[in-house]
Amino acid sequence: MTQNRRQFLRTAALASVGTGLALNNAFALDSILPFNINSKTGIGKGKMKLRFYSYELQLKHVFTVATFSRKTTPDVQVEIEYEGEIGYGEASLPPYLGETVESTISFLKEVDLGQFSNPFYIEDILSYVDQIMPGRTPAKAAIDIALHDLVGKLFAQPWHRILGLNKDKEISTTYTIGIDKEEMVKEKTREVKGQFNVLKVKLGGGTDKEMIRAIRSVTDVPLAVDVNQGWKDREQALDMIHWLKEQGIVMVEQPMPKKRIKDISWLTEHSPLPVFADESLQRLSDIPKLHGVYSGLNIKLMKCTGMHEAWKMMTLGRALGMRIMIGCMTETSCAVSAAAQMAPAVDFADLDGNLLIANDLFKGMVVKKGFITLNDLPGIGLTKL
Amino acid sequence: MTQNRRQFLRTAALASVGTGLALNNAFALDSILPFNINSKTGIGKGKMKLRFYSYELQLKHVFTVATFSRKTTPDVQVEIEYEGEIGYGEASLPPYLGETVESTISFLKEVDLGQFSNPFYIEDILSYVDQIMPGRTPAKAAIDIALHDLVGKLFAQPWHRILGLNKDKEISTTYTIGIDKEEMVKEKTREVKGQFNVLKVKLGGGTDKEMIRAIRSVTDVPLAVDVNQGWKDREQALDMIHWLKEQGIVMVEQPMPKKRIKDISWLTEHSPLPVFADESLQRLSDIPKLHGVYSGLNIKLMKCTGMHEAWKMMTLGRALGMRIMIGCMTETSCAVSAAAQMAPAVDFADLDGNLLIANDLFKGMVVKKGFITLNDLPGIGLTKL
Repeated sequence: MTQNRRQFLRTAALASVGTGLALNNAFALDSILPFNINSKTGIGKGKMKLRFYSYELQLKHVFTVATFSRKTTPDVQVEIEYEGEIGYGEASLPPYLGETVESTISFLKEVDLGQFSNPFYIEDILSYVDQIMPGRTPAKAAIDIALHDLVGKLFAQPWHRILGLNKDKEISTTYTIGIDKEEMVKEKTREVKGQFNVLKVKLGGGTDKEMIRAIRSVTDVPLAVDVNQGWKDREQALDMIHWLKEQGIVMVEQPMPKKRIKDISWLTEHSPLPVFADESLQRLSDIPKLHGVYSGLNIKLMKCTGMHEAWKMMTLGRALGMRIMIGCMTETSCAVSAAAQMAPAVDFADLDGNLLIANDLFKGMVVKKGFITLNDLPGIGLTKL
Repeated sequence: MTQNRRQFLRTAALASVGTGLALNNAFALDSILPFNINSKTGIGKGKMKLRFYSYELQLKHVFTVATFSRKTTPDVQVEIEYEGEIGYGEASLPPYLGETVESTISFLKEVDLGQFSNPFYIEDILSYVDQIMPGRTPAKAAIDIALHDLVGKLFAQPWHRILGLNKDKEISTTYTIGIDKEEMVKEKTREVKGQFNVLKVKLGGGTDKEMIRAIRSVTDVPLAVDVNQGWKDREQALDMIHWLKEQGIVMVEQPMPKKRIKDISWLTEHSPLPVFADESLQRLSDIPKLHGVYSGLNIKLMKCTGMHEAWKMMTLGRALGMRIMIGCMTETSCAVSAAAQMAPAVDFADLDGNLLIANDLFKGMVVKKGFITLNDLPGIGLTKL
């Protein structure tokens, strides 16, 4: 493989850092100039190559809801190679998104990146990918993430820096406690005690107060609650929110069914806590109609086609005075680290997806003392395991 | 001055390109590693230094409106230096913006960039600058532009590429024909014939049809019209727009006084041409209330505090289904080239400000056959003259 300027510098820098020695080896100038990359435009003569393979995520714990339980999540891993540099992407496919490994791979087979002379025209490339067919948002997100990872590597810069963000801003990620029997809830809360500064609690199962009391018997950390459309009466919902506020809850996600626009608007208007859209929100085009209905947005790469659109959604939401949350699916550190590049710009982050799986493929963003901790590696900051 | 990694590579690359020779000089590895810049974070130990000086722009032609004429525009040039790299910015101060050289310099004296450890945290730095005091948008834009130029140079990338845009997209810039006597209008139009693919015509002076007929006697190119709030009756305005459409006009800017919201909404709803906001629009926060009133936005760096907010405004406008135009003041190639970095993302560009002055300080974006032509130089693409 041809060693280009960036790889050379990175290797050289790592060698120097690694040994702590000032190396005195001599190099000819032309060996440090890019071979295949035009030194003026930074654009090579090569073509982008797209590769993908299915990869079943093994969950650490069996995931149980009323109707079924599962211990795996289907997933497709994507790579885009250009001039010897590889960008990594991922499509996570939890059943409720309505996409499968088959639908994802059939979409990826339709994508022809060879028509673009270079990976830098992100706007053009992703517009093309989006118009191939409707839906297939995890597949589109996988390409978007791989493209960002690749371009960041070609720039030799991490995306949090390209976006102008301060990676040292302390953003906590929530960790989710599912609906369960009182003893199990207490046990799960004890397991993660001290590791997270905010927990996210699933409500709407008819045992809301019991859930909160069980957690409060173990910890005093602030709590976010995700109702998953579970409340049906707006007056009762408002009473519950007032009670939750007294218990140190800081936000409420998707309190009522997404079609109940008027009731949700009323609830948001009267709620002492911010009310976030989740099931109501997929893509950028959904946001204008959510303005005035919710006070915040939960943005997820797998639903919105990736980082490029997610960043636009954050900009739009902020401009409309809404609060911003970034979430994830069960996924490897690939997609989680992509989302984490934008974490310094959000109010709440729910990026615990990689912590739930036993067979991660990458090291990327890590959670330290509950805080999202970004590294300075280029692209989305991945090291392949 | 310490030669850092980027400067070394650029110098080396230019030397190699310039001579066409494969140079065989040998360099020790440590001479190509950055001296002051951490090779892992790309962040130096230095402090940003802000410098500024006033610079009077000499207009090529005397600028005349009913009440006065002027042949200069006040201007303040700004530089931010960091680790031997310099970013250039500019505050253009045409009288109607309500800012002066004094108000601009007094603001710049308040700005303490030394408190930031590096220039990459654009979001934090510009939030700080914005909150120093209200207004002073040209001074804020000057800092924003210099910071973008600097960060692009530290990334060794042009901003059009950092923004993911295709610089080869053909975007025409308009050239403005002011209100004048018929013969002068014809003469001015003849002077620029063949150089532009779209002209922008100032209307609203009571001689609208005469203006258009004079131009149409010389050229058939599409025309944009800028009414500068000049029409007072919405029915007459609509009749005029219908007539204009027959004459090959493609858009109408600020047809009526900005306070006449209901009339403008009605006009936009009935107009066969897109209606753009100019005087109605300053900053990001203005856009939500212009949605439904206008069909497009004319965004100008000197009014909106610079590239960072302009890009957010484009994102928001697009998300709301509005058309986007980018405009400028009389200014050097510095501010014009900053705005031009975003030109591949707009519907109309009105970036002729540098063509109107006789004492430009930079070479940057150039207009070729009427098209905005971006270079591949890092930052905003400037070469100091």
